[in-house]
Amino acid sequence: MTEFEIIDKYLKKLGHFKNNKFLSKDSFIGIGDDGAVLPLAGNEETVVSTDTMVEGTHFLAESDPSSVGQKLLSVNVSDIAAMGAEPVCFTLNLTLYEYNHLWLTNFCEGLSKIAVENNCPLVGGDITKGKKGGSKVLSVTILGLTVNNKVLRRDSLNVGDDIWISGDLGEVSTALSLNKYSEKLNFPRPRLELARKIRNFASSAIDISDGLSTELAHMLFASSKKQNRNFCIEIYFDAFENCLSPWMRVWLKGRVSNFDLCKIASASGDEYELCFSASKRERNLIKKLSEKLKMPLTLIGEVFENSDSYRFKESVSSSGVVWLKSKGEVLPRNNIPESGYLHFFNNS
Amino acid sequence: MTEFEIIDKYLKKLGHFKNNKFLSKDSFIGIGDDGAVLPLAGNEETVVSTDTMVEGTHFLAESDPSSVGQKLLSVNVSDIAAMGAEPVCFTLNLTLYEYNHLWLTNFCEGLSKIAVENNCPLVGGDITKGKKGGSKVLSVTILGLTVNNKVLRRDSLNVGDDIWISGDLGEVSTALSLNKYSEKLNFPRPRLELARKIRNFASSAIDISDGLSTELAHMLFASSKKQNRNFCIEIYFDAFENCLSPWMRVWLKGRVSNFDLCKIASASGDEYELCFSASKRERNLIKKLSEKLKMPLTLIGEVFENSDSYRFKESVSSSGVVWLKSKGEVLPRNNIPESGYLHFFNNS
Repeated sequence: MTEFEIIDKYLKKLGHFKNNKFLSKDSFIGIGDDGAVLPLAGNEETVVSTDTMVEGTHFLAESDPSSVGQKLLSVNVSDIAAMGAEPVCFTLNLTLYEYNHLWLTNFCEGLSKIAVENNCPLVGGDITKGKKGGSKVLSVTILGLTVNNKVLRRDSLNVGDDIWISGDLGEVSTALSLNKYSEKLNFPRPRLELARKIRNFASSAIDISDGLSTELAHMLFASSKKQNRNFCIEIYFDAFENCLSPWMRVWLKGRVSNFDLCKIASASGDEYELCFSASKRERNLIKKLSEKLKMPLTLIGEVFENSDSYRFKESVSSSGVVWLKSKGEVLPRNNIPESGYLHFFNNS
Repeated sequence: MTEFEIIDKYLKKLGHFKNNKFLSKDSFIGIGDDGAVLPLAGNEETVVSTDTMVEGTHFLAESDPSSVGQKLLSVNVSDIAAMGAEPVCFTLNLTLYEYNHLWLTNFCEGLSKIAVENNCPLVGGDITKGKKGGSKVLSVTILGLTVNNKVLRRDSLNVGDDIWISGDLGEVSTALSLNKYSEKLNFPRPRLELARKIRNFASSAIDISDGLSTELAHMLFASSKKQNRNFCIEIYFDAFENCLSPWMRVWLKGRVSNFDLCKIASASGDEYELCFSASKRERNLIKKLSEKLKMPLTLIGEVFENSDSYRFKESVSSSGVVWLKSKGEVLPRNNIPESGYLHFFNNS
């Protein structure tokens, strides 16, 4: 089985799409040339993002290959959603150490499901052979386009903005620690519908891949640097409690306090919820949106300027987050949840 | 060392560029958000290509990391060149099993050299950890843009076109077999300057990554399918002899016949020369181009229709190539060079 045969047998069918206004033009070239030619010309910005999944790190050799395929494309769609853009097409890099028909069939079936759902076809890629006994390494690079040039950046927090979270948090890390089956861990749903609505009014957005506390730190770092101001974000645990995962609550019932559940939830990565900031003026709109999309949207905090006169200056963590029990009550500094999931190279 | 620290320490500097008319706009976002935002809007087509290099397959753990970095980006630039487009920017996926400061420094220095040469900055990526004792897996996805919407496809051969080869062939596979040091193997030079000239008149082009005989087969397959005709290509060994690598000749002097050198050269992959087709009218222009670029451009064959009346019908190989000693003399079918390098999965 050569790479060309694998492309023909498993991957070519991922190149199909319907009514994709960019790729339907005559000049489009998909899989099969030195490069894909994408007639994206127009007034919109191109958005590109890429994510890798490694066997043994992000999934197991015995993981359901359909789930692996779905997740690989979904996490990339989530990045495009978090930028407020629309997915257009993707490329795929597969490093495999053996030819396994069943694995490839199911992996491609999973990939195809998400590709079809998002009308986001495969346009190119590379298949390489890794060494025997090695790990599969799977990368997707996704291309998207903005709509009316709207982009949801992470560096555009404003003082006084509310901080919102979609869905719930905590299921994924709890499922991993307790070895529970989790739909959300295996089949994350990118929040593309939500992104389509909030891109018209949100000031900033990020998807929660590394854990809320890390994503807040990213937004703060980027916004402070970009705007040459010193931002901080207050997060209120009494509000944050409302977006704790019901599954996490069930699995950990009677074993940890609500407060500790919040700490677990704020560090839980791979959740693919959206965290976004918006003006207080938008609260009613967001409430209606939550009902319309049948999706919890929870107001968990607020953006401040970390100036000399800031009331909780002593409680600002190194990342710029201020963890409060409630709007008026600080947490002791030795009891704050920092930080989310990171790929550590421990020999450093 | 976390992935964010690695990005800051080694990769951020690869995001620099000068006078890139697309990325210089205010709306550009490079490394650091959920996705890069590329203001490519305009009338040109976007071209995307991707290539992976795996430790143990494409390079060795002890290979010069600077060479690995240069090659990783160069082979992608070569794909953009083979499409007749201009490189704009790239994303990077690194799967590493340990933190190695010296390797990362030199790898990024190599990557940076090619990025700067081509004014093609890094705009995003993903760093992941593979398992201890595994192989490094390195992928680049490159984005390019057409100029005046010209694209060098592989599926546009015309009957009567000449087949041309840039540079020389055979050095790479010979260096690999004999364990010789080869500049071309370690530091391939994408033929971007040549591509800029030929995109105005060539009918088809492909870069030689898998070996000439395989690339010819690709052009034939794609062109026959696209145009619903049955093409074949005659390659003349007496002409092809003119583009045998001087290094291969030195290394194999007295050990193999000229004819066998041709067979080795036609199967040698990773050469990154361009193979292109052009009308006979362009011969003078191409001769002048060769002088101007100080680069051999060799006419090695011609495109025919493989019809019932085709004179060498009996000698057409399964891929559609007709290997001839000279314009009038066929080779015995058991003595033809098929085919180039393929990634085989031998357990299939």
